[in-house]
Amino acid sequence: MAHIQLNNDAPGIRSLALYRPQTGKPLYELAQALLRAGSPDSTLTDAQRELMATFVSSKNCTRFCMNSHAAAARYLFGEERNLVDQVLADPYTTSVSPKLRALLTIAERVVQDARKVSDQDVSLARAEGATDGDIHDTVLIAAAFCMYNRYVDGLATLTPTDPAAYEAMGERMGSMGYVLPAPTPISS
Amino acid sequence: MAHIQLNNDAPGIRSLALYRPQTGKPLYELAQALLRAGSPDSTLTDAQRELMATFVSSKNCTRFCMNSHAAAARYLFGEERNLVDQVLADPYTTSVSPKLRALLTIAERVVQDARKVSDQDVSLARAEGATDGDIHDTVLIAAAFCMYNRYVDGLATLTPTDPAAYEAMGERMGSMGYVLPAPTPISS
Repeated sequence: MAHIQLNNDAPGIRSLALYRPQTGKPLYELAQALLRAGSPDSTLTDAQRELMATFVSSKNCTRFCMNSHAAAARYLFGEERNLVDQVLADPYTTSVSPKLRALLTIAERVVQDARKVSDQDVSLARAEGATDGDIHDTVLIAAAFCMYNRYVDGLATLTPTDPAAYEAMGERMGSMGYVLPAPTPISS
Repeated sequence: MAHIQLNNDAPGIRSLALYRPQTGKPLYELAQALLRAGSPDSTLTDAQRELMATFVSSKNCTRFCMNSHAAAARYLFGEERNLVDQVLADPYTTSVSPKLRALLTIAERVVQDARKVSDQDVSLARAEGATDGDIHDTVLIAAAFCMYNRYVDGLATLTPTDPAAYEAMGERMGSMGYVLPAPTPISS
């Protein structure tokens, strides 16, 4: 049960956006700007952005965010959806391109201690074809999920256990993006 | 020097908002909603919110955010400004009210591992007079600064060393709140 009275029965971040739309609005707008639009000079696809969100959430052990963004990534990768589970099993699998692998290394440093992102990490990503926009977006996706994960876990929000619930979320996130949920009556 | 070409000479988060206003806008709106308006049922003052931001930034060792929010907190606390340095020296000093101390405990858990915020932590804060809005805002302030701190550090943005620079920032943040910076030419 959540630590505070949220007055809705939505799961994870949705329950918090419904409880407090004043902060929910910029939180959803940030997710949309980061995971869909991306920096003008970025080469990252939406599927790769969702994969980074999944990876960071797995590092932070936040099941709700990990499962929902994994589902969105699978939806967006389509035929290459197996990559998501390969990265969850081993983020440095050779199934991932060298560029994405170098960016995941930067994301992992941001999770652990962002001061440790080194010139060498950044040079390596650049040598594999990463642009400034890719490096910026990687750091901000990793930082932002360190927030979303803590927000969801720190208030002990509802984490569904049924995989079908995440599949439906992933399809919605993949097809519609991040739209602030509208208030609905509590189901009984 | 920053890891990417930001094309401006602003410090910290301001340089990032200028570089990428698409994400800067929701990031500034979130800061404004969290550190100024607050939840409708919250009892926290703006000064106390800035103190929490300072405390979290000190835990994450992000000097830019710690110094700028400390300056904003000093500005807002006015005659009680010494509290800021007392908390930086010892967050559990008896100069802090029992309610704020219980909330700082929750904030510290969110920084370390948000899954560890316990029913007991929350009950203790409630017993000292914290509302649901206070608990919500504490968790989200702590989570959000885990993002801002990592964003600023992960891209190695400019961190001024002159205390006067922070005093000016603190006065602006305290009096005007969080307004997205307008582009200005790079000074030579």
